[in-house]
Amino acid sequence: MLGKDDPAASSTEAAVVVRDIEPYGDHQPAVAAASPKHAELVALTLLSGTDRAALGRLMRLWTADIVALSAGRPAPGDTAPELALPGVALTTTVGFGPRVFSLPGLAGLKPGGLDDLPVMSHDRLQPAWSGGDLLLLVGADDPVSVVHAVRRLVADAAPFARPVWRQTGFWNGAGADRKPVTGRNLFGQVDGTGNPAPGTPEFDSTVWSTDGLEWFRGGTTLVVRRIRMNLDTWDELTRSEQERAVGRKLSTGAPLTGSVEHDELDLEKRDADGRLVIAENAHARLSHHSTNDGRRIFRKGLNYVQDTGATRESGLIFLSYQADIAGQFLPLLARLDAADALNEWTTTIGSAVFAIPPGFHPDEWLAQALLR
Amino acid sequence: MLGKDDPAASSTEAAVVVRDIEPYGDHQPAVAAASPKHAELVALTLLSGTDRAALGRLMRLWTADIVALSAGRPAPGDTAPELALPGVALTTTVGFGPRVFSLPGLAGLKPGGLDDLPVMSHDRLQPAWSGGDLLLLVGADDPVSVVHAVRRLVADAAPFARPVWRQTGFWNGAGADRKPVTGRNLFGQVDGTGNPAPGTPEFDSTVWSTDGLEWFRGGTTLVVRRIRMNLDTWDELTRSEQERAVGRKLSTGAPLTGSVEHDELDLEKRDADGRLVIAENAHARLSHHSTNDGRRIFRKGLNYVQDTGATRESGLIFLSYQADIAGQFLPLLARLDAADALNEWTTTIGSAVFAIPPGFHPDEWLAQALLR
Repeated sequence: MLGKDDPAASSTEAAVVVRDIEPYGDHQPAVAAASPKHAELVALTLLSGTDRAALGRLMRLWTADIVALSAGRPAPGDTAPELALPGVALTTTVGFGPRVFSLPGLAGLKPGGLDDLPVMSHDRLQPAWSGGDLLLLVGADDPVSVVHAVRRLVADAAPFARPVWRQTGFWNGAGADRKPVTGRNLFGQVDGTGNPAPGTPEFDSTVWSTDGLEWFRGGTTLVVRRIRMNLDTWDELTRSEQERAVGRKLSTGAPLTGSVEHDELDLEKRDADGRLVIAENAHARLSHHSTNDGRRIFRKGLNYVQDTGATRESGLIFLSYQADIAGQFLPLLARLDAADALNEWTTTIGSAVFAIPPGFHPDEWLAQALLR
Repeated sequence: MLGKDDPAASSTEAAVVVRDIEPYGDHQPAVAAASPKHAELVALTLLSGTDRAALGRLMRLWTADIVALSAGRPAPGDTAPELALPGVALTTTVGFGPRVFSLPGLAGLKPGGLDDLPVMSHDRLQPAWSGGDLLLLVGADDPVSVVHAVRRLVADAAPFARPVWRQTGFWNGAGADRKPVTGRNLFGQVDGTGNPAPGTPEFDSTVWSTDGLEWFRGGTTLVVRRIRMNLDTWDELTRSEQERAVGRKLSTGAPLTGSVEHDELDLEKRDADGRLVIAENAHARLSHHSTNDGRRIFRKGLNYVQDTGATRESGLIFLSYQADIAGQFLPLLARLDAADALNEWTTTIGSAVFAIPPGFHPDEWLAQALLR
């Protein structure tokens, strides 16, 4: 009677870290953390009556929510308190879109480079996935916890702002043994290898703002791009065609010139026929900091699927953190738009930019240096 | 510098079971197993050329896919082999809709009671979520693995059948310490307490077919109902109003007449004012087997959220397994439709029924007793 009372054929115990993430700090804590298993992004638009003072009230409400929800406790006024669960590493990141800084009292306080991105030639942007005045990015190990937290945060925002888009994504940053790995997008590629490592000077200079705005010290900016991926046409390629488009091996994520994931790219190496091993238009070449005047970003991905009855759309919610969008991200984006081999199988259908205020410490509230 | 290099405020290790689930057995193995963390259901419609023999070819293909994918190996011809991951408890359950049994050669082999459900007075069925000739139900601990398996299985079905609907859901059957619990729906209710326990005679007589069809011995039937839940109006209730509608406590799932989750309901108990503690129209009363001539079902749920730009729909993908839909499920459904207090906050928008063939053993293939 296999498969009945004890259907586990092979079963081992693995130790997993069960944790809550401290909501306090100089930075909002999820920025430097690994991609969550589950996440939801909600962009909201400010209601017409929401001025600087009202936005401050919302930030005080959200701060109290975030402190409670991060610890797995119900938020104040929670209507479904039993859905709050500790130990699921729940984080909430809040962002401000460019229009926030046109509110009276906030002139001159917009971080440099925080403007809607120009439309790229390959973009097919849909308003349903673009723009927004406020961002909530909630991540956790458990999707029920994410849904619960978002519901609470959006409910508390109702007097001030209403949702304009929502995106749900997932990521698997663990191997078969549950140890951390970089993770793969739905093309099967290891995705995110080139990132600077959190805690290094390189990471700090890439991510945290240095534009001199006092309130924004410890802040960063986030670009959200919804990238539709055509799995059907991608699947028609041979593996070597797929690897040539990326410039990395599908099996390990190693560059085509190397043998393990984190080997440096050899951008000059040629094969026996004299062809560059990492092609001129390979994604890994064009996005590498050495070919971008040393400019780096800190990028993360969340896979998504979107079903409408019988049709399925698959893709990547691409998240890029950087000190300065105009100085770091935009030149890279323009370069990839012009030449990236992957453009044949990917289409960006949503785009938004947000300032990510610094973190808060106990007895402080989110963005109080801007709004108090 | 809290929240920067080591953002974990409280962090403990929990032992989790990492496992693959044996695909073989007298029954398809996911039926009796706990709800998976992540699942996708795909209903497909047979193409006009798909006859009994062709359906057998598809079942042989799917059997090979299922054996590989269950072990975390790429399926034959896998275009994204690196997305196959062992240890994620991946299962695939296959079902046949009523129309399959109108194929030449299959007359008289339809399990008794396997007919589309009549439309209930509260139903607002949408074709986009209803019906279907074949069902794939893939579950796993990891959503990337689910998406990968579904992609492979649907691709292999392309010569025979095409998807007509897809539903994605999630469930958290673990508490803060990662130990198994019943789990909660998005109303916050503990959901599934009244189920017969797998491995008991009660479970076996509830679930496995006894209708005498030789090929269907070890099979069962599955009802899939997509139930939209109005969280906004639900949240307007007080907790005691919510508990009265359900007949159970929100905190523990215990009946209002008891103190722990699995306490038996006392359906006669009255309060000081002489009112029934578990109300006449409470969901727990109306769905209890003792008020349904002893008829039971084995029910599971998957929470879902469906986003369309700014709007979110939330609900439950309700799954009911039983030996006989007409004899067990339909009387219960009619009873709940007539009187269930929860009808005010729930609307069924999709409905489908499937025969779930018995399992297969090594060197057998799925439903071969029907199709070979």
